[in-house]
Amino acid sequence: MTAYEALTARFARRAIVNEALAMLGWDAAAMMPPGGGASRGDQLAVLTGLAHDMLTAAETADLLAQAETETGGDAWQAANLRLMRQAHVRATALPADLVEARTRANTACEQVWREARRQSDFAMVRPQLTEVVRLTREAAAALAPALGLSPYDALMDGYQPGISAGDVAPIFADYVRFLAGALPEVEARQARLGAPLRPVGPFPADQQEALCRRLSAAAGLDFDHARLDRSTHPFCGGTPSDVRITTRYDEADFSQSLMGVMHETGHALYERGLPLRHARQPVGEAAGMGAHESQSLIVEMQACRSDAYLSWLGPVLLQTFGGDPAVYQTANLARLWRHVSRGFIRVDADEMTYPAHVILRFELEQVLISGDLAVADLPGAWADKLRGLLGIVPPDDRRGCLQDIHWYDGGFGYFPSYTLGAMAAAQLMAAARRAMPDLDAAFAAGDLSPLTGWLRTHLHGQGSLLGFNDLLRAATGKPLDPGDFAAHLTARYLN
Amino acid sequence: MTAYEALTARFARRAIVNEALAMLGWDAAAMMPPGGGASRGDQLAVLTGLAHDMLTAAETADLLAQAETETGGDAWQAANLRLMRQAHVRATALPADLVEARTRANTACEQVWREARRQSDFAMVRPQLTEVVRLTREAAAALAPALGLSPYDALMDGYQPGISAGDVAPIFADYVRFLAGALPEVEARQARLGAPLRPVGPFPADQQEALCRRLSAAAGLDFDHARLDRSTHPFCGGTPSDVRITTRYDEADFSQSLMGVMHETGHALYERGLPLRHARQPVGEAAGMGAHESQSLIVEMQACRSDAYLSWLGPVLLQTFGGDPAVYQTANLARLWRHVSRGFIRVDADEMTYPAHVILRFELEQVLISGDLAVADLPGAWADKLRGLLGIVPPDDRRGCLQDIHWYDGGFGYFPSYTLGAMAAAQLMAAARRAMPDLDAAFAAGDLSPLTGWLRTHLHGQGSLLGFNDLLRAATGKPLDPGDFAAHLTARYLN
Repeated sequence: MTAYEALTARFARRAIVNEALAMLGWDAAAMMPPGGGASRGDQLAVLTGLAHDMLTAAETADLLAQAETETGGDAWQAANLRLMRQAHVRATALPADLVEARTRANTACEQVWREARRQSDFAMVRPQLTEVVRLTREAAAALAPALGLSPYDALMDGYQPGISAGDVAPIFADYVRFLAGALPEVEARQARLGAPLRPVGPFPADQQEALCRRLSAAAGLDFDHARLDRSTHPFCGGTPSDVRITTRYDEADFSQSLMGVMHETGHALYERGLPLRHARQPVGEAAGMGAHESQSLIVEMQACRSDAYLSWLGPVLLQTFGGDPAVYQTANLARLWRHVSRGFIRVDADEMTYPAHVILRFELEQVLISGDLAVADLPGAWADKLRGLLGIVPPDDRRGCLQDIHWYDGGFGYFPSYTLGAMAAAQLMAAARRAMPDLDAAFAAGDLSPLTGWLRTHLHGQGSLLGFNDLLRAATGKPLDPGDFAAHLTARYLN
Repeated sequence: MTAYEALTARFARRAIVNEALAMLGWDAAAMMPPGGGASRGDQLAVLTGLAHDMLTAAETADLLAQAETETGGDAWQAANLRLMRQAHVRATALPADLVEARTRANTACEQVWREARRQSDFAMVRPQLTEVVRLTREAAAALAPALGLSPYDALMDGYQPGISAGDVAPIFADYVRFLAGALPEVEARQARLGAPLRPVGPFPADQQEALCRRLSAAAGLDFDHARLDRSTHPFCGGTPSDVRITTRYDEADFSQSLMGVMHETGHALYERGLPLRHARQPVGEAAGMGAHESQSLIVEMQACRSDAYLSWLGPVLLQTFGGDPAVYQTANLARLWRHVSRGFIRVDADEMTYPAHVILRFELEQVLISGDLAVADLPGAWADKLRGLLGIVPPDDRRGCLQDIHWYDGGFGYFPSYTLGAMAAAQLMAAARRAMPDLDAAFAAGDLSPLTGWLRTHLHGQGSLLGFNDLLRAATGKPLDPGDFAAHLTARYLN
């Protein structure tokens, strides 16, 4: 057995433990009774530790050094070995006591945050967040030299490998300029059109669920390898051969669950389409969170909110829920589900203002990590940024800097992935449309398979062979080009 | 830290991995889409291996030797250390290649068995079962000297520690004599009474499920720490703080799901009642499979099939399902759900003939393990035994030696636990009735809490502090006494 082969066996064992963790995580969110929480925490901690030990073990280091001297192997093997090394560097760069201190601090902060958000009281969680920021800065400082990156880029790299703040900053600056021009125009146009008709409920949850499952299956999700369940926070979990997506149902409004399930279906199709022959290897995994978000958004935002798909969906909805047929006309659905507005809450934002919420967080987390912004000054900085970007100021912390879990759980460097994904989705859709000029005809028949087939070949099946920009280059002929996203928004909202 | 303290930490980690395994096993049976099977097999194998390694590690052996020289500690600690040693002996007695060969052979045999049972063709699975028996004999021979037991007793000890074939054989022989006299009498009595009225369905599964959940909760199962779901084969899984029980629903007959859920509720209450301060330690676990079965049967057979409970349940059923009130009269329900008959299938057997099915298997598996019975001769031996015990002969192998998974999955020595449990349940109920003479009044109000409270004190909370007979002695004043079971059957079926 070569050292490389021994490494693949070792990483496969680690991946299998991670699969168990994914299942236990899904269960905790979708199934577990409340009394199981404490034991589940122990189960997750012990298995996480076992997976971590497999990565940091001295044998892993020895095998890596040896495998890097071996010759032969194809591009996949070379990429896999490189990713193994990166995972090992990332896992060993942090001293064990720092890892432990972060886990404790993140957990403590997240718990206080839940209550602070409920009470809309930032001061309540400020000490805990201060500690989390302090330890995150320490971790970033330790990771930076090991990865040859700046501290903030070392954090970003953990979510979307190969993309730095320097790559993202000019793209985001351009978007701010675009938005400043486009947003008032879109608002004026919406004002001229008046309010859309709204579907009148109630819409029973079981009926919504059956429809969601049907649409997800029609989009290509094979329920012999997937489940759809309910959880407070919708997500896509599980493993590539057993994907678990969740949503929540509001009986007064089916649009959230419906579009939410299509979003998670996009994530799920990515997992299902990963290259089987590299299963359980780093190179067989998804190419980062930006790439992942591109797949949820290309299904939800690009395909399912297109006129063509809505023209098919309207009659399906009418048949399912009944009511006034005028509600389900394509133009009305478009005005309902493609409404742009300046809001306080990121997760409720439309696709045009969403990047503003991301840019705000991207800018603030960089100065939190550099130390140029004190945690105590966060609410004020948040208000200033939001005023600058959208011209509004959050009336309270709950609708301001307390709204997202990310930072309070130690997650810095993640936010840019959302907008990288939105932009990549537009770019991939533009390329797919060039390759298949009749895509809208398929959407108008409720058929996403030409699109998902194309994505499977050009994106899903590539795993992590290529970095984010190289993956886009191979699929679309160019690295990330935000022009396609601006063109998409212009075509959808201004023409 | 003492060596004993280090051992408790080590065994707790192992227990936590076993908790993860329990959850993944529940998911596989109750939730997993079929396409997840292959990955799940890998997950279970890797985690089982990790738990096994924790037990067999050299450090565990060193700590055990050291802890056995330490002084101090109470009876719980002494029992825990003894159980740790036993678990270690059992895990290290078998060479690794034999463990692996058994896993492979059991899996292969079980798969062929499913098809062989479907086709009722014992010859199809004979080669695989021959191999399983050969490897089980090899394992029993290796375990026997390590445990100081005979080979068959070494297998039995894995399910009900401290109980041997020599303990069970005379008890079973007495039962055979009792049954020979009692069974014809009961049959004659049933014939005189004629057929009971039957509830007329359909009984929607959702309605059955709601009722089952209500009755289980009323029996004391706290659904903040439990779930009730559906699976092909009902079972009780999960962990003490998060118990997962399952059943299946037949819309033509609610009695199976209802009594099945009360059976699993008995198991679940045992897990929930285990001593919290010894959680995740061997001494904090249930006291063997016979003890476990006593808890499912005392709830299902002793309490829920009693006249008193049926007198409360009847009106509840009438209110839930409607129909002819005469069906739900106590006397009619008793004739429906306490009907004795000579059948071929163990899992369908009533409480009077059930031990005959167990005795048949107990006698046959002993000669399979001793080598006195060749696998090829099993169908004939089965027919002979069943004719001797119940006067009937299975018309085919599906209803004969192919009906149970146990042997085909390498499980030898388990069957006696079912009848040990039935007998212990009768003995515990007799003691509970002595302690609480008004138990029937509570049952007649649908209230099992006096019984379950008594069980929590005298059985659940004792964990594995005592062996099976000492546990019964502490709870009832005597070791296992099959006289109480015979007295129960006589009172219920012949008076």
